Amino acid sequence: MVVVMAADATDEDADNVAGLVRAAGGEAFVSRGVSRTIIGLSGDIDHFATLNLPAQPGVCDVVRISVPYKLVSREHHRERSVIRVAGVPIGPDTLTVIAGPCAVETPEQTLRSALMAKAAGASLLRGGAYKPRSSPYAFQGLGEKGLRILADVRDETGLPIVTEVVDPADVDLVAAYADMLQVGTRNMQNFPLLQAVGGAGKPVMLKRGMSATVEEWLMAAEYIAQRGNLDIVLCERGIRTFEKATRNTLDISAVPVAQRLSHLPVIVDPSHSGGRRDLVLPLSRAAIAVGADGIIVDVHPHPETALCDGPQALIESDLRELASVALHLSPLVGRTLTPAPAPVPSMSPALA
Amino acid sequence: MVVVMAADATDEDADNVAGLVRAAGGEAFVSRGVSRTIIGLSGDIDHFATLNLPAQPGVCDVVRISVPYKLVSREHHRERSVIRVAGVPIGPDTLTVIAGPCAVETPEQTLRSALMAKAAGASLLRGGAYKPRSSPYAFQGLGEKGLRILADVRDETGLPIVTEVVDPADVDLVAAYADMLQVGTRNMQNFPLLQAVGGAGKPVMLKRGMSATVEEWLMAAEYIAQRGNLDIVLCERGIRTFEKATRNTLDISAVPVAQRLSHLPVIVDPSHSGGRRDLVLPLSRAAIAVGADGIIVDVHPHPETALCDGPQALIESDLRELASVALHLSPLVGRTLTPAPAPVPSMSPALA
Amino acid sequence: MVVVMAADATDEDADNVAGLVRAAGGEAFVSRGVSRTIIGLSGDIDHFATLNLPAQPGVCDVVRISVPYKLVSREHHRERSVIRVAGVPIGPDTLTVIAGPCAVETPEQTLRSALMAKAAGASLLRGGAYKPRSSPYAFQGLGEKGLRILADVRDETGLPIVTEVVDPADVDLVAAYADMLQVGTRNMQNFPLLQAVGGAGKPVMLKRGMSATVEEWLMAAEYIAQRGNLDIVLCERGIRTFEKATRNTLDISAVPVAQRLSHLPVIVDPSHSGGRRDLVLPLSRAAIAVGADGIIVDVHPHPETALCDGPQALIESDLRELASVALHLSPLVGRTLTPAPAPVPSMSPALA
Amino acid sequence: MVVVMAADATDEDADNVAGLVRAAGGEAFVSRGVSRTIIGLSGDIDHFATLNLPAQPGVCDVVRISVPYKLVSREHHRERSVIRVAGVPIGPDTLTVIAGPCAVETPEQTLRSALMAKAAGASLLRGGAYKPRSSPYAFQGLGEKGLRILADVRDETGLPIVTEVVDPADVDLVAAYADMLQVGTRNMQNFPLLQAVGGAGKPVMLKRGMSATVEEWLMAAEYIAQRGNLDIVLCERGIRTFEKATRNTLDISAVPVAQRLSHLPVIVDPSHSGGRRDLVLPLSRAAIAVGADGIIVDVHPHPETALCDGPQALIESDLRELASVALHLSPLVGRTLTPAPAPVPSMSPALA
Repeated sequence: MVVVMAADATDEDADNVAGLVRAAGGEAFVSRGVSRTIIGLSGDIDHFATLNLPAQPGVCDVVRISVPYKLVSREHHRERSVIRVAGVPIGPDTLTVIAGPCAVETPEQTLRSALMAKAAGASLLRGGAYKPRSSPYAFQGLGEKGLRILADVRDETGLPIVTEVVDPADVDLVAAYADMLQVGTRNMQNFPLLQAVGGAGKPVMLKRGMSATVEEWLMAAEYIAQRGNLDIVLCERGIRTFEKATRNTLDISAVPVAQRLSHLPVIVDPSHSGGRRDLVLPLSRAAIAVGADGIIVDVHPHPETALCDGPQALIESDLRELASVALHLSPLVGRTLTPAPAPVPSMSPALA
Repeated sequence: MVVVMAADATDEDADNVAGLVRAAGGEAFVSRGVSRTIIGLSGDIDHFATLNLPAQPGVCDVVRISVPYKLVSREHHRERSVIRVAGVPIGPDTLTVIAGPCAVETPEQTLRSALMAKAAGASLLRGGAYKPRSSPYAFQGLGEKGLRILADVRDETGLPIVTEVVDPADVDLVAAYADMLQVGTRNMQNFPLLQAVGGAGKPVMLKRGMSATVEEWLMAAEYIAQRGNLDIVLCERGIRTFEKATRNTLDISAVPVAQRLSHLPVIVDPSHSGGRRDLVLPLSRAAIAVGADGIIVDVHPHPETALCDGPQALIESDLRELASVALHLSPLVGRTLTPAPAPVPSMSPALA
Repeated sequence: MVVVMAADATDEDADNVAGLVRAAGGEAFVSRGVSRTIIGLSGDIDHFATLNLPAQPGVCDVVRISVPYKLVSREHHRERSVIRVAGVPIGPDTLTVIAGPCAVETPEQTLRSALMAKAAGASLLRGGAYKPRSSPYAFQGLGEKGLRILADVRDETGLPIVTEVVDPADVDLVAAYADMLQVGTRNMQNFPLLQAVGGAGKPVMLKRGMSATVEEWLMAAEYIAQRGNLDIVLCERGIRTFEKATRNTLDISAVPVAQRLSHLPVIVDPSHSGGRRDLVLPLSRAAIAVGADGIIVDVHPHPETALCDGPQALIESDLRELASVALHLSPLVGRTLTPAPAPVPSMSPALA
Repeated sequence: MVVVMAADATDEDADNVAGLVRAAGGEAFVSRGVSRTIIGLSGDIDHFATLNLPAQPGVCDVVRISVPYKLVSREHHRERSVIRVAGVPIGPDTLTVIAGPCAVETPEQTLRSALMAKAAGASLLRGGAYKPRSSPYAFQGLGEKGLRILADVRDETGLPIVTEVVDPADVDLVAAYADMLQVGTRNMQNFPLLQAVGGAGKPVMLKRGMSATVEEWLMAAEYIAQRGNLDIVLCERGIRTFEKATRNTLDISAVPVAQRLSHLPVIVDPSHSGGRRDLVLPLSRAAIAVGADGIIVDVHPHPETALCDGPQALIESDLRELASVALHLSPLVGRTLTPAPAPVPSMSPALA
């Protein structure tokens, strides 16, 4: 942390700052230049925040020079992490495809979507039982009934399931069914929810807030980690900008940026970022090529009747191409496509 | 709703769209132009959404031409609403000042802040007992202890209290103490929370999400209204843009825009939008002049030791000027400054 | 300037940086902390830029701590400047209204617009003869013929004229007619144009680029100033954000921010920022109340047939209200409304 | 174009609009719905703009349903174009790498950069002789001397040259040396410059404005095309957003979006978008994978002493990897890497 004094600050002003920091147990190095004095601080940065240095006399600016997150930072954990979702790895050596319907609607639609996901190269099934919707008049999801459908389809197909949770009060229920909990873009700074999933004992996929900086995203991950859960996968899904040709602007650079700052895996959602089916394949290729640890895509057997986000769902004819892209691009970035786990026969009753 | 057909769409494509709409109980008017065909729809727009028209063959675009909110819309409720918070009005004929500390820290700090608020012309006291913070290592608020302090200070000063709630599970507890519930910017699309405050029986102040459009803000209000609570005050607090000279960019135009679209009162937070003490007075003047129904400002007796947002809090010497601004600008926009209610003597024990 | 060394930088790395700076004639103060070393620099900052310090081994970050503009900075010119346009002042003690049609179309339309401008309290006439338009198929302005119309109307009404120039090659021609040259938002970083108007001997109104930071805006002013022309008025006209309810987002905070950083006057364009007639009056009130040194508004006798920006032009019935706002709000911010100069009789031939 | 009437518009209002359109030679189709009337227009859309329909009584909104550009649109030119720069193709079947120093500094630095460019797989050399810089105190380029250096290096290496022009008055001079003219991001809406390069008889690379929508970008290309020059290559170079971890936010989706709307080639600048050397390779891979027709990258033999943008320039050790990426990724997207042309021996005197 560096304190920059104003051009007209006095020596007493600088001594005052140094004194406050030292009284708080830190070190302060005062450099008096021709036009300005600067003071370098070291010690317990978080504690310095309570000194309210920007409000001290003669202080012009306070510049933080270390990152405000610790557990998810790569600084003290050089090796990139591998997160396992019911055995399926997400990490630096693999490319993991997650696919499924935006919303669980019926057992048949979910099963067919899961089979489509497999055909597209997926090893994890996503599907929403609780849907955060901008309008109170839109379909809000099937709730626990949807979770049961997902569990049945997991038994049938072997694909572990990833599903969203939107209320801290629902975390235990959702965690009882899901293999991975998803925190959506609108909840990235829903701190009670972050704390709840931090204690749920299941891996978490944390979507980036649509107007969150990479630093805020990592701070949100830190909330989860601080509760003892470091099984976190970051998901870039597009940010809000002035451009309206796409639903959001996929921040493809955020993938290598976040991977450099954090040891956590980073995946990309090309469906929600573009919001258009014709962009899903190009953006999937870009995501794999940039070095993402995985992608998550919407598929739907009948997108024209989907209750949610139909226009961006892949259809049958796209699947083979996605699988081919995932298979052939992965080796060029030093990865292998994660295979789908086999269903466990005894666990798999006939699907109702 | 208008469906725009692609340049190469066939007559069958247009007939298909019209047929789907009519089968769903709506009306469809097909206009065949030289270069394109367009189809005007009327009926139950929300139901049409399930037809997934953008995915139909030959459809180029679907343009919504009516707003997606109803209860908070001004279209069927021309007169602007007055919301009363424990008797204190917020509405088109008044200017209501809400002031207080960002966070409740101690009884003394809260009482002194309340007296500062009164000196600044405030008729409502704000103060946070539950603080949503970007870092898990930052001060998170005193919780229920903070609520009790607020209640004591209300007894002492007569100022009704406005305080934030961040978890649906806390809504009943907070509502037991507060006169108005605040939903913060990070929770504007926390739908379980919106639904919970919609059923809490207390007025709600809904801050605009930092990257929410005015339409999304009104949709969030609709969530609250749909649960039977129309006592909602909208609060503009700055949006996220590329400009970093201020913490957020105050969208001053959003005040008249939202007032034209909705009958709900709209107030402005000049403290959080600018993030700098020296901007609070100019932005307060701008907010009053543009026609806001109120302002909400941070005050703190010792901003240099504040546990939260000290750099933006007004101090003693600013208060008289704020009170003067509120008093003298109001009549120029056809309003009167809302007076502070008197304390009720019997309710006011000695403050510990 | 502060150089922050990486956590794993060596002493040699720090010595290398210090050596480079000293060899370049600067001073370097090395502070070795527990976790990091920082180096404070003083001397010729611009020269240090050629050392490419961010690329030196062990360097983590280079933080600039002084502003990159000098001539327009308030640091060495505490008193705010008054710019005079053919005698009409724009500065800290006055409120100057500039009004007129977006584009000059005919002598009659321009004269009627000028009379409307006067009725609205204006002391300067704006009008475009050269129009930068997004589409090559849109009306591009009358060119020199438009300048002659403006000059005739100036003779008739006494109002000095403000008009835009878009090509460095046109600067001399436009300066021969105009009392003040306008550089538009799309040209804020057209450096040859800035240099040309810097040498034209006429005051310049510099509109903020629609995606320019306040710092970039002041750097653009520095380009003009560096050519010897310090008669510059800054004009905030809205920035580009995600919000689409208004054409641009008026950054009202930029007014006090720029006034604090620079001694130049700052005015506001409420017409182009909102893009809607119904917002011009509220935003004008906000601009005056926030402390702007003036406003510039579109007026048009027949906005429904205007060749440019008709939907945002004020009409007859709005003028009295604008004049009243300008007159009554000014004293509350310590200003007086600048009166319109009288026409000089001998210069005023019959208008063709 | 669709005119949406207000809910309370009368039949006369709708008839008035229809009448205006028909009087202007267009067709108007009135659809009266239960809650609203809409009017579909066809004919000369540009002419309708002069009718100022949004200002007519009872009009709520006017929605454009066709694109405002023609010559660069893909609607009437389905096949994607191939642009040839001194024989080097940029188009749908190839991947063309353009590389070189941000600024031309010396003959040696430029020649060495050109050899680096070749090693990186480039077939075109970029280098700036005229540099638009935010600060008037920064290096502004060598001007014509820089152009002569570029021409010498072209003779030596065989690489055609791409260089920026910033002033309409310089276009003829620059075109006399360059094989392709570059219009930079700050000049994307410098209309006199666009018109000048439109008449210069050389291919043009048009960088996207940092806050321009894809539609505005295509409108800027239309300006060039309208002057008879359709040899235009679009270059995505990052847009301005709230995220500060990268210099700009590379809008990778803009590549397929622009390719769908326009027949012109689209390339990507991974150096300026990220602003960091460590991002150039990942973003280059992403650009190729998404389907860009080429990339343009900064290289510099001594980035630590570069006069411009050193921190983002590739160095020797990166080149082989870039060449390998370009070679091996291209076939996966159905392209071949464009080979560098051989130098023409007789034209190649010893470099001074």
